[in-house]
Amino acid sequence: MDRADPLAHRRDLFVLPEGIVYLDGHSLGPAARSALAGVEAAARTDWAQGLIRSWNAAGWIDLPNRIGDRIARLIGAEQGEVLMCDSVSVNLFKLAAAALPQARTRRVAVEADEFPTDIYVAGGLGELADAPVAVLQPGELDAELARGGVVIKSAVNYRSAEVTDMAALEAIARDAGGLIVWDLSYAAGVLALDLRGAAARLAVGCTYKYLNGGPGAPAYAYVARELADRLETPIRGWFGDARAFAFEPAYAPAPGIARFAAGTPGILSAAALDGALEAFEGLDPGLLQAKSRALGAVWLDRALSAGLKSGSPRDAAARGGHVTLLHDDGYAIVQALIARGVIGDFRAPNAMRFGFSPLYLGFAETWRAFDVLDDVLTTGVFRDPKYAARARVT
Amino acid sequence: MDRADPLAHRRDLFVLPEGIVYLDGHSLGPAARSALAGVEAAARTDWAQGLIRSWNAAGWIDLPNRIGDRIARLIGAEQGEVLMCDSVSVNLFKLAAAALPQARTRRVAVEADEFPTDIYVAGGLGELADAPVAVLQPGELDAELARGGVVIKSAVNYRSAEVTDMAALEAIARDAGGLIVWDLSYAAGVLALDLRGAAARLAVGCTYKYLNGGPGAPAYAYVARELADRLETPIRGWFGDARAFAFEPAYAPAPGIARFAAGTPGILSAAALDGALEAFEGLDPGLLQAKSRALGAVWLDRALSAGLKSGSPRDAAARGGHVTLLHDDGYAIVQALIARGVIGDFRAPNAMRFGFSPLYLGFAETWRAFDVLDDVLTTGVFRDPKYAARARVT
Repeated sequence: MDRADPLAHRRDLFVLPEGIVYLDGHSLGPAARSALAGVEAAARTDWAQGLIRSWNAAGWIDLPNRIGDRIARLIGAEQGEVLMCDSVSVNLFKLAAAALPQARTRRVAVEADEFPTDIYVAGGLGELADAPVAVLQPGELDAELARGGVVIKSAVNYRSAEVTDMAALEAIARDAGGLIVWDLSYAAGVLALDLRGAAARLAVGCTYKYLNGGPGAPAYAYVARELADRLETPIRGWFGDARAFAFEPAYAPAPGIARFAAGTPGILSAAALDGALEAFEGLDPGLLQAKSRALGAVWLDRALSAGLKSGSPRDAAARGGHVTLLHDDGYAIVQALIARGVIGDFRAPNAMRFGFSPLYLGFAETWRAFDVLDDVLTTGVFRDPKYAARARVT
Repeated sequence: MDRADPLAHRRDLFVLPEGIVYLDGHSLGPAARSALAGVEAAARTDWAQGLIRSWNAAGWIDLPNRIGDRIARLIGAEQGEVLMCDSVSVNLFKLAAAALPQARTRRVAVEADEFPTDIYVAGGLGELADAPVAVLQPGELDAELARGGVVIKSAVNYRSAEVTDMAALEAIARDAGGLIVWDLSYAAGVLALDLRGAAARLAVGCTYKYLNGGPGAPAYAYVARELADRLETPIRGWFGDARAFAFEPAYAPAPGIARFAAGTPGILSAAALDGALEAFEGLDPGLLQAKSRALGAVWLDRALSAGLKSGSPRDAAARGGHVTLLHDDGYAIVQALIARGVIGDFRAPNAMRFGFSPLYLGFAETWRAFDVLDDVLTTGVFRDPKYAARARVT
């Protein structure tokens, strides 16, 4: 499978520590050589030597748009529809707030099994904007969409990796006069997303997972071109003004997605992200999806054969880039794996997540990594008390 | 004056391009060697080799608090009262929104000569939260404070460098049941700020100006300890939750300033900022203030002697770190200066700003830089049409 892998050569684009199989790219992707070169050039050359002149000379001013255009090609958006900005949390707030006056019903909803920030942001927005907030239980989503409010929804669930049918939900929302803010954090870079094809209108996403942008790398926002000029961002930062450098007291939102910029973008982090995205240039996202699912299938098939319980869909087409296995001793098992060079992660109370990022992982190493998991489980070494001590960040 | 300068040796901590006198530290500070080392270590070692483990092993999880504590020492806040997070625009929004329910009058006000983002953010917040917004004309501030609403106010004006009497305004606001959100962007690192002494309760600030954190470096937020637990951030990101890694759907704000974190902090940019702040360690902010004002006095005295019009207070005690000269041909003059190695900046319609950052500037070079300005003006070389073409970023 490694010999037939059309992406195998892309592994050389990355720095990967010796002796590690890195199955945590769904949490923090590794460093592409071009990402390291990008941040170092931005620091040593553009900042230290160019100083303030680099806003023009090094093109810093357009970097959020250029990065947005690179991301657009990976998520099925058009050029000019995506902007690098802020964090996922802040972008969820901005887009959901902007959507509220556009929706037939002034209401924000989110499912209870979403990533916590998506739920928390909905709550905070509802409180500030005096809009009802609904936290949905399983089975309630379709009825909520039919109410025509604003719904925050992940394309891939952070815990189960379950994939959502974006086009189907968009159709329900649109017919009801509502809007969905898609969270692409666990989907971009590993699925062949097609925002335009799904008629998606609003989305945000994270870049430090499968896009390998670096720790806490800036997020992005997508607004469909035909909608953008009707939306108002609640956080009117100067970078979102049409004439930011005219220094006028009257706010005039920039055309299109650019109005969703707020403060000055973090250029050093952006430069790393820009370099990271070079590793995706010229790639068909379908190749990413096919390889990630094939890697995940290797892992999940062995796990099921070994009698482990899956927290992810069996069907690869229903699954994002990670595979979740459920075990009451999941935390300790993951710690024991890390001690043996296989890095996955754990999400309370019992989810062990293993991410299959297609640009740098191989099939043989995935197979060998499962051998390590098998060994940890059959020997019971994970019961050693040293693996029970909880770190601050899991 | 250079020989008697107790800060002269700190210049060696910085990388400064050959042949440049950098009078734009109020816009983007230069790179400290420790800042470059910081971001490179974070990228090459902590990210590329440590990967996800660095959240614990490299202390990434505490970096926003550690940086906040470093900044606290420069602005007269207590340890644990300052958090590095987001941008100034986003932090203004968060703190002003959090202040609204605490103020006697539900109302947001800002002066018309504030930095545009401060005005725009007030407008966006007012619209979302259905609160009246007032943009104040000169002379209206005291009456507005007496109404007991929320006021956004800079400690140093971005255009004139005029310093505000924080303690006096805080007293008026407090007596009226109102709150001020201070914007310290043009003050921190160049004035001996004393937030606790002024009884200031809320503040935000920029780190890429006099704090030299790098282009678009993360901003910070300050909330007085006794107030923090009563405030709710409108942007409830997972990093502001008390148990972020428990992944629970119920939001529980972290104690103190930590609740104002939103999304995952940008670690690479933060590492540069952390390194930049090393250059301030062990320094009495009074030394920074004294030297900056002395440098500014050299410049302003010569400007006034040369018949130039000042846009800044004559009295050094009323002035922040920059000196603004007004000229109808200001844009072209600044371009001609930059072409001759003296970098200042221009703010429409007629303000030439020259910043006197005390860690790396000397008195003799400031004197020589004014010679260049004098030459540009007396020869009229700035009238060359090549200096009239406006760049995107001024």
